[in-house]
Amino acid sequence: MADWKIISGGVTAAQGFRAAGIAAGLKPSGAKDLAAIVSDVDAIAAGVFTTTQVRAACVDYSHQKLQGKAPRARAILCNAGQANAATGEAGWADAVESAEQFGQAMAIPVDRILLASTGVIGQRIKIKEFIDGIPTLVSSLSEDGGADAAQAIITTDLVTKEIAIEAQFGDRTVRMGGTSKGSGMIHPNMATMLGFVTCDAAVSSGLWQEMLSRAADKSFNQITVDGDTSTNDTLYALANGQSRTPAITSPGPDADKLEAMLTFVCQHLAKAIARDGEGATCLVEVEVTGADSDDDARKVARTIAGSSLVKSAIFGRDPNWGRIAAAAGRAGVRFSQDTLAVTLGEFALMKNGQPLEFDRDAASKYLKATAEDGEYLKTDTVKIGVSVGIGSGSGIAWGCDLSYDYVRINAEYTT
Amino acid sequence: MADWKIISGGVTAAQGFRAAGIAAGLKPSGAKDLAAIVSDVDAIAAGVFTTTQVRAACVDYSHQKLQGKAPRARAILCNAGQANAATGEAGWADAVESAEQFGQAMAIPVDRILLASTGVIGQRIKIKEFIDGIPTLVSSLSEDGGADAAQAIITTDLVTKEIAIEAQFGDRTVRMGGTSKGSGMIHPNMATMLGFVTCDAAVSSGLWQEMLSRAADKSFNQITVDGDTSTNDTLYALANGQSRTPAITSPGPDADKLEAMLTFVCQHLAKAIARDGEGATCLVEVEVTGADSDDDARKVARTIAGSSLVKSAIFGRDPNWGRIAAAAGRAGVRFSQDTLAVTLGEFALMKNGQPLEFDRDAASKYLKATAEDGEYLKTDTVKIGVSVGIGSGSGIAWGCDLSYDYVRINAEYTT
Repeated sequence: MADWKIISGGVTAAQGFRAAGIAAGLKPSGAKDLAAIVSDVDAIAAGVFTTTQVRAACVDYSHQKLQGKAPRARAILCNAGQANAATGEAGWADAVESAEQFGQAMAIPVDRILLASTGVIGQRIKIKEFIDGIPTLVSSLSEDGGADAAQAIITTDLVTKEIAIEAQFGDRTVRMGGTSKGSGMIHPNMATMLGFVTCDAAVSSGLWQEMLSRAADKSFNQITVDGDTSTNDTLYALANGQSRTPAITSPGPDADKLEAMLTFVCQHLAKAIARDGEGATCLVEVEVTGADSDDDARKVARTIAGSSLVKSAIFGRDPNWGRIAAAAGRAGVRFSQDTLAVTLGEFALMKNGQPLEFDRDAASKYLKATAEDGEYLKTDTVKIGVSVGIGSGSGIAWGCDLSYDYVRINAEYTT
Repeated sequence: MADWKIISGGVTAAQGFRAAGIAAGLKPSGAKDLAAIVSDVDAIAAGVFTTTQVRAACVDYSHQKLQGKAPRARAILCNAGQANAATGEAGWADAVESAEQFGQAMAIPVDRILLASTGVIGQRIKIKEFIDGIPTLVSSLSEDGGADAAQAIITTDLVTKEIAIEAQFGDRTVRMGGTSKGSGMIHPNMATMLGFVTCDAAVSSGLWQEMLSRAADKSFNQITVDGDTSTNDTLYALANGQSRTPAITSPGPDADKLEAMLTFVCQHLAKAIARDGEGATCLVEVEVTGADSDDDARKVARTIAGSSLVKSAIFGRDPNWGRIAAAAGRAGVRFSQDTLAVTLGEFALMKNGQPLEFDRDAASKYLKATAEDGEYLKTDTVKIGVSVGIGSGSGIAWGCDLSYDYVRINAEYTT
């Protein structure tokens, strides 16, 4: 159905992008912790940031850079280990210095550099190690560096998250790739969901930002691990035009196709975060239909995916339609309970607001099978379907189950 | 400070109220499961109900009864075992029949009876057992029956919840008592927070409902165990005038005093629910000051008390100010992070948006001591203080920690 295909390469799959990830000594573990994604030429840049009132210095800094008309960027510079949040003026100075030093080493203007950080809140970046690492980072930049960058931005994630796709636009090929990190919305004192997307299409700035905002609403804004927004959440998308395709400057079939690609990439990266949720044993996908609007449907889906009771039931392999219905009811969206329907995989659990007879053992087995046979992101998805009425609004949210390990990871981190 | 004193008797402490709680065979365990609270004369009745779209029959039924001008009630009839939610027309008929049969047995008009149910969602009330139990229920009504009623309304609660107070109004005594139940907002397929308050003051209907709504906003609406609103949440308050005190019909010192008493009773009952949260090892009290409004402060307090990461940290005895600050930031309330301050008990953890040096071991010990030495609702309260700015808005919320047992209880209930 999709008129694109999945390729390798992550953020360096698109033309004119290089990336690197090195170990600069910021993480106590000695793992890779400093990443750069660089475009050969100025790229149209769009961003979506955390809505919290407690923000990291890199978020405020980069948000400013993207405020102007038609903002452009050459590079995303990201460290893992310290979140540089709640660090005051010193943290701001660190952010500025890291950008300036990287700009000098790359010979690119400092206002073309976007920053991101993830790690322990309240800790300043280890700025000496960061600066000392820049020459190695720059010399490591490569057209095959996507995987290294993906590795360097993760913290407590169990796996790296990458995707790339390509599609034909006329007789030319557009490529788009991305990477993300995140495992709790906030980790044990560690922060953040990050997402970086690169693309070689040519697209106007306003359109690109609109596409990214809409794609975020259908992806990163629709995942929940524990309901906790972080101080550092950041999503960037760069489009550098190196595919040499005609510029997309107005709505139409090409814009629609590019946005569909962007949405697919963002959804893939967002689902990968939800699946890697702390302690998760499966991905949970909640699809809501019949709402008055897509916004309403997304809200109901998010509420179900975020319910501790639904999440516990899934961990316990319990086809508990009552908790699903109750979570739908409290989402803050008006609907008649007489039209509520709930499915779990192939099983119809509830219709017209009332429970149906169903094979409880088989439904429980569906939950067990999906969780235990699971190959990552392929078969271990528990699908919940909810219809709330007769409208045409629909939406999907993703989450994970709530396990003993979530409590263990989050209770035993610092003491 | 308070000009009232705590007395015994629960919902039967006030003049002119009787109550009973019996085992009618609705709970599989054979425990008490049918309760009635009856006023000798018509009482001014106020109610606050769940805001969810998926409501039990008893909620819709009783909400209708309280719609008229100056609604009055003689009795609250409550069963535990089956929630009578998601039961359609049959469930509605059960609600109507239970009220009619009880009304006949008591010789009181059916429109003077309020209903409440709690138990498994999607199950109809065992109506035969219910009806068969009514004669015993009626003959058991007594002026000492408060404790029995408190026992009959609980489900997975570990303890019953009761309070009563009395105060002088001129040369006469006003008494007010209450009981509540709840342990998860929704239990393992079990539902509900219920709260019933009785009072022998004379008060006008409009004032009483306003007082109850405000008291609920400062109590039951400020507790969270798992963020899941139930299908059956109900709070009733009856005032029957049997204290023979002058009727309170307009704002003034007497109205203020009565509202303070009502708020105290509701807060006591609400905190008891939070402390009895599934798997909880301590009560968590979050006080927020410095907000632009009380509403804002209450919202921030609720968000912190409901954060899975904060709750896990407390269970892990981790003085994790970063999670508290991050939760405050995402509450949807605007404030400057430069004025944020966080305290934990006596320990100042953060000021002006930046972390302070503090004795981590001592702070962790504070968490340990409060949780392990704790006598119920007395010393086992973890106190979190947050100041978000320079406004005068303040508010308190209550919750509990998130433990392995919460996951166990909710994952292993039905399968």
